[in-house]
Formats: sequence, structure tokens, C-alpha cells
Amino acid sequence: MISGHVFIATSLDGFIAKKDGDIEWLISRDEPSEDHGYDEFIKDKDGIIMGRETFKKSLTFNPWPFQIPVIVMSKTFDSKNLPDNVRILKTSPTQVMKTLENEGFKKVYVDGGLIIQSFLREKLISDMVITTVPVLLGEGRSLFGSMDNDISLTHINTKAFPSGLVQSKYSVKK
Amino acid sequence: MISGHVFIATSLDGFIAKKDGDIEWLISRDEPSEDHGYDEFIKDKDGIIMGRETFKKSLTFNPWPFQIPVIVMSKTFDSKNLPDNVRILKTSPTQVMKTLENEGFKKVYVDGGLIIQSFLREKLISDMVITTVPVLLGEGRSLFGSMDNDISLTHINTKAFPSGLVQSKYSVKK
Repeated sequence: MISGHVFIATSLDGFIAKKDGDIEWLISRDEPSEDHGYDEFIKDKDGIIMGRETFKKSLTFNPWPFQIPVIVMSKTFDSKNLPDNVRILKTSPTQVMKTLENEGFKKVYVDGGLIIQSFLREKLISDMVITTVPVLLGEGRSLFGSMDNDISLTHINTKAFPSGLVQSKYSVKK
Repeated sequence: MISGHVFIATSLDGFIAKKDGDIEWLISRDEPSEDHGYDEFIKDKDGIIMGRETFKKSLTFNPWPFQIPVIVMSKTFDSKNLPDNVRILKTSPTQVMKTLENEGFKKVYVDGGLIIQSFLREKLISDMVITTVPVLLGEGRSLFGSMDNDISLTHINTKAFPSGLVQSKYSVKK
């Protein structure tokens, strides 16, 4: 059975980026000497699902940051010059997960606000590690969005870092 | 010098109530045997500032829940039958704080989403205790709102409760 997992940082008021995509507020508050657990998180994931915006941002990183297959979900985006191990799928979250499950994927990292929201709505997220950055931005790209119903979570653990980042893990009740 | 202090609960996606004011999602996840620190918080506060909506909700509580003066901020609301120690002020957050400071108030509890937002915008909040409830609501009345600028916070401490509530205290950088 395939499962979806979230690992993301947000401002205290729930934004993952400014409206123009800027994340300087996040980078400037990161403390590179702290281990926020990304390496531990990613090591048992066998794929990363993201939207077009997150993918375009990742293309600006040098070297290419992902060692595992990347699935870009977009109905409109297309490119002939994709990095190795990157493909574009145009189907729904549920269908994407079925496709990946049929190929043997077990645990996928689901990244980006709109993609996370659509996977939550289709009950495809098992757990979320959310790192809260001590800043209020007032506006930007929201981590969460509208839902058909309340989604109950189970708190797994919380860790506060000297930098002021607070990281909580929640599982999603089925 | 007078200072403003926040103590409030929010869903993980940043809502303090549903659109109609309902907080059943909060009450049902509360664990009365846990001490979430309200008594400790309130004991050095000498006044409570709230908006009309929070005040109207508090009128439904029996007995009347506040032992200290209540200041209701509203430009439109008026009532001849106010409980003892309740008054309505129609001025700006800064002016309300000046009025209270002149009367000898030292530390006031600032309650309610819109009131908190307006006090943050006028730099009248010293610290915030925010208790995150493990649920996503999708929509409702937001704790935070738009700002003219980013507001940097300093993380003071975080405590996780067995119920799944996670409580963080932040001070607001001046």
C-alpha cells in the first residue's frame, strides 16, 4: 500500500512562501547547524510528488537536489528537457498514487501547498511534519486550504529548536 | 508601561472558530484534566480587551467568567445592560491602551482574532501563547490577518500535551 508524507515549513500564520514565491524569510531564519530531520525523513521515501511551481523552483538548485524519482503534477506544464528521473503526470492525486503503487512505490514525499491540499482532500496523506518559523507574514501562499470536512489529526511529537523553529509531526486520521 | 498579551487556541490551519462562531471542534478536543496554563496566564493580568463577537459569546457563559475589568472595543455596539466592570470603548487600539495605562493598567489580555490582528498591526502585543489543536477546519475565522510588514517573533517555549494540544509562547520583536 502506497502512502503520502509531508515535510514542510510554514510561517506561524500558515504561509509557505510569499505571493511571489519568495522564501527569504525562511532561509534567513534557518540555522544550518541544527538538524531539522530532512535527511532522516527522506531516506525511506522512494518518490517525490510536487506541483509545477515547486518543480520550477527546484530547477534553480544546483546541483539537482533529488536522488529519487520526481513526479510533477500539472495539467498544463510540459517540457522536453526534464532532468533524469523526472516525469509529468496529468491525472488526479488518487490516480497518480495508483500509478505509482502499481510501479512498486511505497512511501512518497508530497510537497507544495496546492498539491498537499489536493492530497489531503483525497485522503492520501498519512502524516505531516510541519516546521513552524517564528514570523508572521500577513499574506502569501497558504500551506492549507479549504476542505469538504474537518480533518482530525493525531499529534505524534513536537521538538523545539534553539533557532526558534518548532517542528510537530501529526498523523492523519482515516 | 502597559503591555498586551495573547492566550488563544487555533486549529492547525489557523482558525479560532468556524465561520458561524462554533468552537465545538475545540471543546471536543479539550482535556479538562490537563492544565493548559490559563489560570497562571490570567493571574497577573488586570484587564481583558475583546471585540463585540467575543464579548457576546462570553455573555452566554454562566457564571460570568471574568473577575477583572473587561473592555469591549466596538464602534457600533452599545448596551445599557452591561455586567459590572464591563465598558465599551470606541477608540483605536493605541488610544485604548493609552486610556488604560493612564488608569494604572499594567498587563492586559487581548482576545479575539480581529482585535489581536489590530493590536499586532499597532505593535501593542508583547507576547502570545498559542495552543494548536490537532485538526484542520478548512475555513473559519482566522487568528491572524494581513499585516503591513513581516512581524518577527522570538520563540520562548513549547509544550506538548497528551491530548495532542501543542502550546507555544512567542514574544513579539519591537
